[in-house]
Amino acid sequence: MTLPLGFRYATTYAKIRKIAKDDLALIVSDTPAAAAAVFTTNQVVAAPVVLARKNLAASKGKLRAYLINAGNANCATQTGMAVASETTDAAARAIGIAPVHVLPASTGVIGVELKASLITKALPKLAKRLSPDGFQQVAEAIMTTDLVSKTATAELSLKGGTVRIAGMTKGSGMIMPNMATTLGFLMCDASLPAPVLKRMLIAANEESYHRLSVDGETSTNDTVAIMANGASGVTLKPVDYPLFQQTLSKVMQDLAAQIARDGEGAKKLVTIHVSGARSNGDAALIARAIANSPLVKTAIAGSDANWGRIICAAGYAGVKFNPAQVDIAMQGILVCKGGLAAPFRESDLKKRLDEKDIFIEFAFHGNNPGRAKFWTCDLTEGYIKINGSYRT
Amino acid sequence: MTLPLGFRYATTYAKIRKIAKDDLALIVSDTPAAAAAVFTTNQVVAAPVVLARKNLAASKGKLRAYLINAGNANCATQTGMAVASETTDAAARAIGIAPVHVLPASTGVIGVELKASLITKALPKLAKRLSPDGFQQVAEAIMTTDLVSKTATAELSLKGGTVRIAGMTKGSGMIMPNMATTLGFLMCDASLPAPVLKRMLIAANEESYHRLSVDGETSTNDTVAIMANGASGVTLKPVDYPLFQQTLSKVMQDLAAQIARDGEGAKKLVTIHVSGARSNGDAALIARAIANSPLVKTAIAGSDANWGRIICAAGYAGVKFNPAQVDIAMQGILVCKGGLAAPFRESDLKKRLDEKDIFIEFAFHGNNPGRAKFWTCDLTEGYIKINGSYRT
Repeated sequence: MTLPLGFRYATTYAKIRKIAKDDLALIVSDTPAAAAAVFTTNQVVAAPVVLARKNLAASKGKLRAYLINAGNANCATQTGMAVASETTDAAARAIGIAPVHVLPASTGVIGVELKASLITKALPKLAKRLSPDGFQQVAEAIMTTDLVSKTATAELSLKGGTVRIAGMTKGSGMIMPNMATTLGFLMCDASLPAPVLKRMLIAANEESYHRLSVDGETSTNDTVAIMANGASGVTLKPVDYPLFQQTLSKVMQDLAAQIARDGEGAKKLVTIHVSGARSNGDAALIARAIANSPLVKTAIAGSDANWGRIICAAGYAGVKFNPAQVDIAMQGILVCKGGLAAPFRESDLKKRLDEKDIFIEFAFHGNNPGRAKFWTCDLTEGYIKINGSYRT
Repeated sequence: MTLPLGFRYATTYAKIRKIAKDDLALIVSDTPAAAAAVFTTNQVVAAPVVLARKNLAASKGKLRAYLINAGNANCATQTGMAVASETTDAAARAIGIAPVHVLPASTGVIGVELKASLITKALPKLAKRLSPDGFQQVAEAIMTTDLVSKTATAELSLKGGTVRIAGMTKGSGMIMPNMATTLGFLMCDASLPAPVLKRMLIAANEESYHRLSVDGETSTNDTVAIMANGASGVTLKPVDYPLFQQTLSKVMQDLAAQIARDGEGAKKLVTIHVSGARSNGDAALIARAIANSPLVKTAIAGSDANWGRIICAAGYAGVKFNPAQVDIAMQGILVCKGGLAAPFRESDLKKRLDEKDIFIEFAFHGNNPGRAKFWTCDLTEGYIKINGSYRT
C-alpha cells in the first residue's frame, strides 16, 4: 500500500505545547488540489475554522496545504483571527503559494492566546523539511490526549488506473458527532471536480465522523478536510463515483472507529447497530442516545450486561416507539426480547463483555428500513483523570 | 416547623434489595386529598408509572396514599403490570381505601422481575406501623445510591390560617430534567382543587426538577407527586395562589438542589445562572448543555477554571448566539468578557473552586429577558465506580 502521490509532509516542535513533542505540521500538495472540508456546528467557532471556510470559498475549492498545530485551539482569544492570518500567510510564503490555498486547523486549549511568532518563526525550517515520508510524523504531531496515532489508507483500481486515499485523524475528547469530529485530514491522488469531492466528503462524513461520540461534546475547532490533487494521472469519471464514495466512506469510518477506540480513558470500542427504525435519522438518534449514555458506558466499562440502561437511553432519544417491539443483543447474545428480559447466562456474557470490542444490536421488530452504525467507547475513571486538570 | 397535618408514614424491609435496609414505604393521608403528579417522558415507562397515571385519571385527581419501593424499578419485566396492580390492591386493602386512590412508585434496577409477594406480605404489618412520625424513615427508605436523605419543608401564613408543605426526594443517578427527575413526594395540608394543584405542580416542576441534571439520563420511573389534604382547615383562595406557588417552587427547588449535591460521586453542587437570552427556553437549553457537559463537570471536579469548555458547551446547545456577547463568571470572578479571556488570578480562583458550592454565571450582553437557574454536580471517578457494576 503506497500513499497518494504528490503530497509532502513535515513536522516540528514550535513550543506551542508545554512538553517537547512536535506540535506544528504541514501537509502540502505538489500541485493545486480540488478540496473540500466540513466544520464544527458549534456557535463558538475558532479563528482557523473561520479562515479555512473563507479560503475554501475564495479559492472555489482549491488547496495546496494544511497548516496544523496542536496544543492551542486559537479560539476565544483577542488575537485569534490575526494569528490565523499571519501564520497562514507565513506558511504560504514558506511554500511559495497563495495564502488562500492554505487550510489552517488548530487543536488544544480554548481561551489562551496563541503567539503567532512561535509558528511564523518555525515555518521556513518546516517547509524545508517537507518530504513524502513524513505522513506518520504528522499523524503523531497532531495528537493531543490521543494515546495512539490514527491513520487509514485505501487503494482503488479503476479503469483509468489506480488511485490512493490516505487519512489521518486525532481525538480523543470533546468528541461528538453533529459535525466532523475533531481534526481529520485526507489526501487523494485522483482528479475530480471540487463540488463532487465536497458532496462525497459530506456523504462519507455522515456515516463516519457523524456516527461517533466519545463524550457528547462538539468542539469549537472540528475540521475534516480532503485534497484530491490528480497526481495519479487518473481523472474520475461519473461511473467511478460510487466506488470512490464507498472507499472514502470506508477510510473515514476506519478513522472514526479509531477515535472511539482511543477515546479518553477508554478500554473498549463499542459498536452500536440500530435496525428496523422508521428512518435512518431515527436509527441514528437512538444509536446516539445509547452511545452518549454515561450509564451504558460505565456498565460496559464494568462488563455489566445492564441492558435496561440501553433501552432506557433509547427511550429518551426523542423517537417514538413501542418498547414491546425491541430486541437487544450484546456480543451476539440476546439480552432483551420484545422489551423484556431474555434468558441468558450472566457469567458467559460477563466474560464476553471483558473483550476489547463490544457490539450492541438494537433491533425493532418488523420491516422498517431505518438503520445506523455508531461508534463510541466505555467510560472509565481514566476520562475523569485526564479531564480534571487538562488546562492547568 | 411542623409537618403537614393529617399524614402518616411507615417503612419496612421487604427483601426487595439485597442489603437489609428498609425498601418499602407508605405515605397515607387521613382523608382524601387533591392530588397531581408529573411523570417521565421516556418512551420506556415502568409499570407503576402506567398505573399511577391511570389511577389519577380515574380518581379525577384524588389520592389517599403513595406506595413506594426501592431496589427494583418494576420496569421491562414480564409481570410488571400484574405486580403493580397486585401490590397497589394489597396496599388499598391494608389501609382500607379504594385501589384507585393509591399512587405506586418504584426505583431500582430495570429488567429484573419483582416478586409481588414480597410487598403484599409486608403490607399488613406496614399499614399497622403508620405514624405521623415516620416522615424521615420514608425519606431514608426510598434512597438507592443516595448518600444522604433529602427533605424540605415550608410553612405559609395565609389569611385563613397556616398551611404546611413537606417534600422528600431521592436521586442520585439517571437524573436529567425533561421530566420530573427520579422520585419526589410532596404533602400539603391546605385544601385546593386538584386542577389548580396540578397546574402549580407543573409550574414548580418546570423551575426545579426540570432544571436539574446529574448525568443527562431520563429514567423510566421518574415521578413527582403531591397530595393536598386540607387537614389544616385552610382552603386556599385564588388570592393565595401566587404565594402558594412560590412556596411550592421553593420547596421543590430545594429538593432538586439536594439531588444535584448528592449526585453519584459528586463532591460539589454546581448552580448555573444564564441571563440575557432571548427567552427562558433558550436560557434553559444553554444552562442544560453546560450542566450536562462532562468536560465542564470534570474541570470543576479538578478545580480548573476552564471557561473555554463552558462557552463551548453553550455553543452546541442548539441556540444561535454571538460569542462576542458572552460574559462568564465563576464564583463571582469574571473569566470571560465578550467571548474572550478576562484577566483573573488563576491561583485565587483555583482556591475558590475547591469550595463545595460552585456558581457559574453565563450572561449575554443586552437586555433580553430570558433567564434560567439550573443545578448539576461535578463528575468524579466516584460516578464511574458506582455505575461500573450497579446491577451485578
